[in-house]
Amino acid sequence: MITIHHLGVSQSDRIVWLMEELSLPYNIKFYQRKVEDNTAPDEYLALHPAATSPIIEDGELTLCESNAIVEYLCHKYGNGRLVIPHTDENYADYLYWMQFNSNTLTVFMAELALKESATLNSAVQKILLRRREGYYQHINNHLSKNQYLAGNSFSCADIMSVFALTTLPLFGGRTVDDLPHVKRYLADIGVRPAYIKAMKIAWPNI
Amino acid sequence: MITIHHLGVSQSDRIVWLMEELSLPYNIKFYQRKVEDNTAPDEYLALHPAATSPIIEDGELTLCESNAIVEYLCHKYGNGRLVIPHTDENYADYLYWMQFNSNTLTVFMAELALKESATLNSAVQKILLRRREGYYQHINNHLSKNQYLAGNSFSCADIMSVFALTTLPLFGGRTVDDLPHVKRYLADIGVRPAYIKAMKIAWPNI
Repeated sequence: MITIHHLGVSQSDRIVWLMEELSLPYNIKFYQRKVEDNTAPDEYLALHPAATSPIIEDGELTLCESNAIVEYLCHKYGNGRLVIPHTDENYADYLYWMQFNSNTLTVFMAELALKESATLNSAVQKILLRRREGYYQHINNHLSKNQYLAGNSFSCADIMSVFALTTLPLFGGRTVDDLPHVKRYLADIGVRPAYIKAMKIAWPNI
Repeated sequence: MITIHHLGVSQSDRIVWLMEELSLPYNIKFYQRKVEDNTAPDEYLALHPAATSPIIEDGELTLCESNAIVEYLCHKYGNGRLVIPHTDENYADYLYWMQFNSNTLTVFMAELALKESATLNSAVQKILLRRREGYYQHINNHLSKNQYLAGNSFSCADIMSVFALTTLPLFGGRTVDDLPHVKRYLADIGVRPAYIKAMKIAWPNI
């Protein structure tokens, strides 16, 4: 049985969501962030050398990284469901949108760092803003022509990308209020029974 | 014929490397960064809404993101070579190490932002340092037990990860001098004919 090591207020809610979409059983072990500095507790850090969230355990294997975990679980236990195969016409889109989460997080982390800076309107800030707006305008435009990120089939690319659109804004990330097609997309996601159930279990209550 | 839009001093040298590993033909179009602020020129930004480097063109398709491009090219033109299939025992490792580049870049970009900050030893800096060391100690340890990142077969996970180990240090990123297994690995990579040829064509001369 898969164990999801679920760090509160992190990206591991998407693994709960994936398991609910696949109707697969799992154990969930909850970890609370340290009160003093909001970082992961020592028992969580001990799970994996990189110890970013999410982390799953499957027998001997301890695996980090959402992108890796979702495709691993879909192939090993879901008969390849939610993975778009390389023979599909939406394969390139699937691959591209599997990266949206990493891209937006890169910008978010750097912006977080910059907020501590006295040097506003800096060169780095200009590059970050250009990247960020590129990513978000692109997803909005893409969703004006596609129901989901890899065409009309819901896939891991959606499971990977929703966090940036729903959770990052809670922590000061870019909101999507000005992006109508992203809002339509999030409304469609929001009524999925597996999503509703997973968020009840694992949503980052703050 | 594939066109690689090659922005100087960027990550697009890995696509040249991939095409050389696969012995596939390609066109390469060179772009120089703007002198005044070292950002991509307008004609490069016009290629794609996100416009990060690398970008390829394949007929009607313009595709961004290294992770997406390498797997797309291997499947479409390389008969799946250099992609570790989901039935392979090293599949989980393959998936994990395909993300090393994004992870290290996230930290690098945030560190770059922090360098503009007056607040050293900040909470963000502490988190970044923990993440960075986790990633690098993990890759060193992994390479003490594996010739390449996904076992004993060279794969896209290697093509994705070398940039962080060779190029980022040129721009102030973490060096790998204290990581003996990473150094052994880079020595093995460095004698690959396709790597040598690709770096002659596309290495970021600075």
